Amino acid sequence: MATGDIGLIGLAVMGQNLILNMNDKGFNVIAYNRTTSKVDHFLANEAKGTKVQGAHSIEELVSKLKRPRKIILLVKAGPAVDDFISQLTPHLEKGDIIIDGGNSHYPDTIRRVKELETKGLLFVGSGVSGGEEGARYGPSLMPGGSPDAWPAIKEIFQKTSAQVQGEPCADWMGESGAGHYVKMVHNGIEYGDMQLIAEAYDILKRGLGLHEDEIADIFEKWNKGVLDSFLVEITYNILRFKDDDGEPLLTKILDQAGQKGTGKWTAVNALDAGVPVTLIGEAVFARTLSAIKSERTRANKVIVGPEKEAFRGDKKQFIDDLEQALYASKIISYTQGFMLMRETAKELDWHLNYASIARIWRGGCIIKSVFLGDIASAYEKNPNLESLLFDGFFKKAVHKAQPGWRRIIAQAVLWGIPLPAFSTALAFFDGYRSDILPANLIQGQRDYFGAHTFRVLPGKENPRLKAGEDIHVNWTGHGGNVSASSYNA
Amino acid sequence: MATGDIGLIGLAVMGQNLILNMNDKGFNVIAYNRTTSKVDHFLANEAKGTKVQGAHSIEELVSKLKRPRKIILLVKAGPAVDDFISQLTPHLEKGDIIIDGGNSHYPDTIRRVKELETKGLLFVGSGVSGGEEGARYGPSLMPGGSPDAWPAIKEIFQKTSAQVQGEPCADWMGESGAGHYVKMVHNGIEYGDMQLIAEAYDILKRGLGLHEDEIADIFEKWNKGVLDSFLVEITYNILRFKDDDGEPLLTKILDQAGQKGTGKWTAVNALDAGVPVTLIGEAVFARTLSAIKSERTRANKVIVGPEKEAFRGDKKQFIDDLEQALYASKIISYTQGFMLMRETAKELDWHLNYASIARIWRGGCIIKSVFLGDIASAYEKNPNLESLLFDGFFKKAVHKAQPGWRRIIAQAVLWGIPLPAFSTALAFFDGYRSDILPANLIQGQRDYFGAHTFRVLPGKENPRLKAGEDIHVNWTGHGGNVSASSYNA
Repeated sequence: MATGDIGLIGLAVMGQNLILNMNDKGFNVIAYNRTTSKVDHFLANEAKGTKVQGAHSIEELVSKLKRPRKIILLVKAGPAVDDFISQLTPHLEKGDIIIDGGNSHYPDTIRRVKELETKGLLFVGSGVSGGEEGARYGPSLMPGGSPDAWPAIKEIFQKTSAQVQGEPCADWMGESGAGHYVKMVHNGIEYGDMQLIAEAYDILKRGLGLHEDEIADIFEKWNKGVLDSFLVEITYNILRFKDDDGEPLLTKILDQAGQKGTGKWTAVNALDAGVPVTLIGEAVFARTLSAIKSERTRANKVIVGPEKEAFRGDKKQFIDDLEQALYASKIISYTQGFMLMRETAKELDWHLNYASIARIWRGGCIIKSVFLGDIASAYEKNPNLESLLFDGFFKKAVHKAQPGWRRIIAQAVLWGIPLPAFSTALAFFDGYRSDILPANLIQGQRDYFGAHTFRVLPGKENPRLKAGEDIHVNWTGHGGNVSASSYNA
Repeated sequence: MATGDIGLIGLAVMGQNLILNMNDKGFNVIAYNRTTSKVDHFLANEAKGTKVQGAHSIEELVSKLKRPRKIILLVKAGPAVDDFISQLTPHLEKGDIIIDGGNSHYPDTIRRVKELETKGLLFVGSGVSGGEEGARYGPSLMPGGSPDAWPAIKEIFQKTSAQVQGEPCADWMGESGAGHYVKMVHNGIEYGDMQLIAEAYDILKRGLGLHEDEIADIFEKWNKGVLDSFLVEITYNILRFKDDDGEPLLTKILDQAGQKGTGKWTAVNALDAGVPVTLIGEAVFARTLSAIKSERTRANKVIVGPEKEAFRGDKKQFIDDLEQALYASKIISYTQGFMLMRETAKELDWHLNYASIARIWRGGCIIKSVFLGDIASAYEKNPNLESLLFDGFFKKAVHKAQPGWRRIIAQAVLWGIPLPAFSTALAFFDGYRSDILPANLIQGQRDYFGAHTFRVLPGKENPRLKAGEDIHVNWTGHGGNVSASSYNA
């Protein structure tokens, strides 16, 4: 009777597609949904002719699964996950595995792993990326949680996932909330990639005045080079998609970007961790600025930009520069994303494998690209790489891209076309390679008005300015020499 | 026996200075500290010859206060505040007032107001700005919380605070956590102002190659114009401050900026509220980038910037442009900060008075400036002003500043000097005044890979693209027409 390899709860599009995918790969899947009529409908339609079986209750679902039981939840992140966990646990036995394949926030996953392990159960939080298409034909899977679960689910995950050059886009991300954490950063990076592409589109349209079809050709050409990626590919398909009247549909889409919060989570996490993930931050803010459409429209009527000057330079050179600007900005974004993961791993004592993360992102997911293969190579060569910019390949790439990158931003600034993500990437690059930043002035100000103290710059020590000491100076000659302690402005 | 006008708990520098200040203004202050030896030391030294009285227990403190009792806490934000509240409440009576003058996070204040009001007590969370000097000679005070508390504390607050043109820098910010909220935004803005000044210093030093004394002269000149402010004033004092060997002390300060978290709170709040407060975000991230000093030093050795070219333009023009760039960026930062307060007030149903907020920031606090008088005027003219950029004065100022602002950023980009705050301000300005942003492409992508739907641009409606409808397009010709529901990538 118990013939099921895995159970799946939640028959929305993602769940249905993942079931059909696992069925194709030879696994016996038991499908369950809270509204059980959806189970019947699914079996009679999308799953017709497959080996997929249905269950009309949690008990039936559990009874149809081989041990250790594996049940994957594809339900809305939040209380629904805890609710199904509560429903499942009374029916499960030691060593059974619950997998949360939704977009849960990683602190919830950290908590759930702990809670279920005290009950002898195993819990996995798995990022599932790639949208509907990915779920159906091979997603990127980022499982993490109870380590003992991995051997039991490895085959299903690695056969169900996308494959790139014979390698599965599924691997064990690490303990605790690592799987959902890596997925969160993936989504943040996705926000960044999308914003960069949008800015490139904008400057080609508003700056060079090109038509969507011309811009599509440029993206298609870029897709044959270093920018080869799913997002660039769908961009030129979107640019070419016509409404029935022959106009590009894109020009009729409201420019108000939605968000589901996972990009924001990454930016908040970066602020909390104290890691300068500026590009994702700007990408999230750019969506919020797009969202106040009516305010922008009113502003547009009263606030005047610079005089519009036609472009008199070399268009081909400009487009090549833009490709380099996009590439360099993307390198910075991934540099920042991997800095963040590294810091979090250190903080939470996780063991993330950066080469593996890059490898499984090469296929199945929204940010899949040739570029990720280069990142995987960099971390394979040096698993302790301090940052991508220290890797020979990326250092060389940025050096080559740099002149065009700067020209593009300078031109956009004079034109009045906003490139927040390109700009912050360059500012980060120039700050990151600065031995001395003007933060000395900030420290001087903080000590001046709040007695917050400062430290001495190495090489400038003297008897008054000792290395390793918190120094306070009586800048004004009055106000006391006491440094701030319990109260900090 | 009960002769005390107000009690104060917490005798660190801020607490001591605030007591001496209130004493100077004619109020009888009772001082208490957990470690009571500090009380004796304070009375025997700093408070010698004043009317300040001490208390050696909570009971004694309470017994010495007139009713309704007013007790201000100046202790470390967090558990210490709750701890003192718990110690105090058994000794207090209906209508007594506890005031938290520390840097509490506003959600804590929201909670505490509720909790104490159920006990018949009044709670005020008050921002206290101005550091040691402000506390001693007149801070900016931002109280908010139980509305009934205001009439009872108004006189003390308004006499103790700084005065600008005969007006006190203390006013009622509003209900619930409004006081600490406004203080949080103040601190975020302070982060922004400091970062902008640091960037101006950086480009004068690394770009024009000026000495600290020359840069001081520039800031001193600016301080006579639209940038007249406390932070600019202390900046030229800091720039001129010499170590004993005659070198500017500033050049010996480690360029690693610390932070106490309130700037970060503002950035996180902006992300949560969906308001593009990009400048504060970049200012916080700039501090975190400064903090990884050793990584930057290593990067500096291997990553090469652009060829260094000497400045061949008109230095005076450049410096004037920079003044305008700093001014325009500052206008953007305050525009964003007030946008955030407006959104939060809407969200939490608070009644913030923006003119009053700007007025009380004109003196006593770190960001005090002439500029804030102009903001107060703008909101006095139109309390419902949508954004500062819609005000005639600021619109004109930005229009005037625009050409120089753009030239400075373009030059910095080519030079390789990072101006993250200047750059994000300009990108915001250009985005804010854009009727159409490329977010249409982001929406197209989201619908393409995740069936997230989009809406039609007003004016482009047709029978296939109806206004107000969530539209999903089958971009690829396969993959189904179902739009994403419970699962969102």
